[in-house]
Amino acid sequence: MNPTLESVSRLQTLHCSVCATAHSPYSLQRVSACCHMPLLAAYDLHEPLGKDSINPLDGTMWRYRALLPLLHEENQVTLGEGFTPVLNLKSLAGRYSLQSLVLKDEGQNPTGSFKARGLSMAISKAKELGVLGCIIPTAGNAGVALAAYCAKAGMRAVVAMPRHTPKAFKEECYWYGAEVQLIDGLINDCAAWVRQANANGALLDVSTLKEPYRIEGKKTMGYEIAEQGGWQLPDVILYPAGGGTGLIGIWKAFQEMKALGWLAPDARLPRMVAVQAANCCPLIETYLGRQANAHHYVGRPTIANGLAVPRPLGELLMLDVLRESQGTVVSVADAEMVEGMRELARLEGLFVAPEGGAIWMAARQLLQSGWLQPEERILLLNTGSAQKYLENVEGQY
Amino acid sequence: MNPTLESVSRLQTLHCSVCATAHSPYSLQRVSACCHMPLLAAYDLHEPLGKDSINPLDGTMWRYRALLPLLHEENQVTLGEGFTPVLNLKSLAGRYSLQSLVLKDEGQNPTGSFKARGLSMAISKAKELGVLGCIIPTAGNAGVALAAYCAKAGMRAVVAMPRHTPKAFKEECYWYGAEVQLIDGLINDCAAWVRQANANGALLDVSTLKEPYRIEGKKTMGYEIAEQGGWQLPDVILYPAGGGTGLIGIWKAFQEMKALGWLAPDARLPRMVAVQAANCCPLIETYLGRQANAHHYVGRPTIANGLAVPRPLGELLMLDVLRESQGTVVSVADAEMVEGMRELARLEGLFVAPEGGAIWMAARQLLQSGWLQPEERILLLNTGSAQKYLENVEGQY
Repeated sequence: MNPTLESVSRLQTLHCSVCATAHSPYSLQRVSACCHMPLLAAYDLHEPLGKDSINPLDGTMWRYRALLPLLHEENQVTLGEGFTPVLNLKSLAGRYSLQSLVLKDEGQNPTGSFKARGLSMAISKAKELGVLGCIIPTAGNAGVALAAYCAKAGMRAVVAMPRHTPKAFKEECYWYGAEVQLIDGLINDCAAWVRQANANGALLDVSTLKEPYRIEGKKTMGYEIAEQGGWQLPDVILYPAGGGTGLIGIWKAFQEMKALGWLAPDARLPRMVAVQAANCCPLIETYLGRQANAHHYVGRPTIANGLAVPRPLGELLMLDVLRESQGTVVSVADAEMVEGMRELARLEGLFVAPEGGAIWMAARQLLQSGWLQPEERILLLNTGSAQKYLENVEGQY
Repeated sequence: MNPTLESVSRLQTLHCSVCATAHSPYSLQRVSACCHMPLLAAYDLHEPLGKDSINPLDGTMWRYRALLPLLHEENQVTLGEGFTPVLNLKSLAGRYSLQSLVLKDEGQNPTGSFKARGLSMAISKAKELGVLGCIIPTAGNAGVALAAYCAKAGMRAVVAMPRHTPKAFKEECYWYGAEVQLIDGLINDCAAWVRQANANGALLDVSTLKEPYRIEGKKTMGYEIAEQGGWQLPDVILYPAGGGTGLIGIWKAFQEMKALGWLAPDARLPRMVAVQAANCCPLIETYLGRQANAHHYVGRPTIANGLAVPRPLGELLMLDVLRESQGTVVSVADAEMVEGMRELARLEGLFVAPEGGAIWMAARQLLQSGWLQPEERILLLNTGSAQKYLENVEGQY
């Protein structure tokens, strides 16, 4: 029986991001069996599918059901994630003489960050495929989201987190009943622990891009940016890239919408800017040719915990996005992030995570260098609320 | 010139909630000049207005523009508040053999609570009426929301908060650039300070129900409950009532929708349950006839900071709602709230404020007593996220 027959999902196959070999979307997959690299979901985009397939009554990312990989609605594990607001930053635009500056606020997701999208999708698919428990290495937000969605699904959750992560992240995991392992080091050290602890594969490892569905949740940010902008895309999107699933996912959404005819055939896609922390910027090092790849990059902690990802599995895919979109990569020091947070809070009433402070300071850098023009339509993607980061920035308002 | 001529708002007048005298909606109003009691906004509901007046593309409370008091869109001060999800609590319903249990999660609002709705509306109207600064006594969440919306509007914000309020509330206010005054005592002591500090009336006092527009923001919860439920209302709504604006606002929305013909003429409205903290339950004392009113009630602090409101100005209006809806009032002890939080986190992946824990425990009480039947459709209104309350419940997961 073909499980898609009765589904609204257009999911067709999973293919290896390196060699394009197809893999079944009807059994549990991790990285590709061929190249041990990320698998990406492909949909049937040739059969006509109109924008009327979007459910306007659903104020969550699930409004794009046809373009999501979940086959059966009863497996949906949702806390109301997605369809976050795009806010007009008039005061900041005024201060810096910008024509159009908006911010998509992912801090208004369940568990306070964009991670809710990816984990809602991954846990829904895990449920559909009979998984009973999950394990994750995390810089903070993804662990909290995993804990929440596993609680909702009735699954076991094991979270490995750097010991120095602010307490609020750990506490919230405990509330959801997750098992939390504190690790000396960064997320790559957590990943090493996870590999060992889960050597028998008893739990599903939902590390970034090690299973194909978190990115499918994240890509909904791209669909929303298009829909909420009246199907006109901004000129530039600034995105804080740690693992980079969102960057890759947004770009994937743009390609899908082009194939569907939802964007004008001659529509220019946004230039994508990956923003990293000065303390941990593997992508810049590779981008500038200072290293062949990030496999041996050593990073330091940053107040933007989500950016402390020294060796992202999605490095190649991120670099593809930067190249294809004629984007760039920028790094921001911790002290600058705080300055950005302060400006967003005082002028725009937004208490964004240090990652959000970073993207605004990156925009200022790029305006100063002339890479960004004041008349361009700029979108800042703020990935989370500052709430759980308070102890990183205490008293620095 | 009649400012409504060019507005989509159906706002008609403001009337005194005690003697019904009309007051102008085109000048700045506080409590009614006649009785010194809350003013309520009235709309023209006789001219036909269809549900197609709702803007489906607006994923915020502003989708109901015609039924909101803002006259001109350029005065709108928004951070994306409202249209929060209504979540199906299947696991809890299963454990307690309930047929239909849902939770509206106001923790996903900007600044993490339902207060965003009221303050977005009040600050938008304040801007429309030329106000330059606002002052508020608060138990926590309203102060944070005021600070954020004033920052967005470029207004001065003064916040008076009990000294024992968790640090996260204070810190967030500082980030937005608000002036914070810490007061020994509860919100009524803060109110006394505000009266004195603002004796010259230089700032707009946006205390609960002391200006007519916060409740207009809060009432959108009622519109959303109807729309998101397919215009079928639940049988019972449990609401954590401190100042009570939300309780009164939701009920006001139901009346407006009845007048508009948006609800079936014979539609039974929900029984409204006000949930209070055992440490501070003025409404119960009055409801049970143990006091004439709450004017001299003395409350104690509670981990549900928002429920520590000993002398609510809206007491009479709340009692009206309970009577008209055949509702009731229930109190919950602090330790029980924590039990409720734990159950919601572990079974439903929701990290709700102690106020949210309280409403679930109130539901359990009412089920046990038989006032609530397991086959009734129950809606829990969770007013905020637990994030800022962490220090109140530390380690109690």
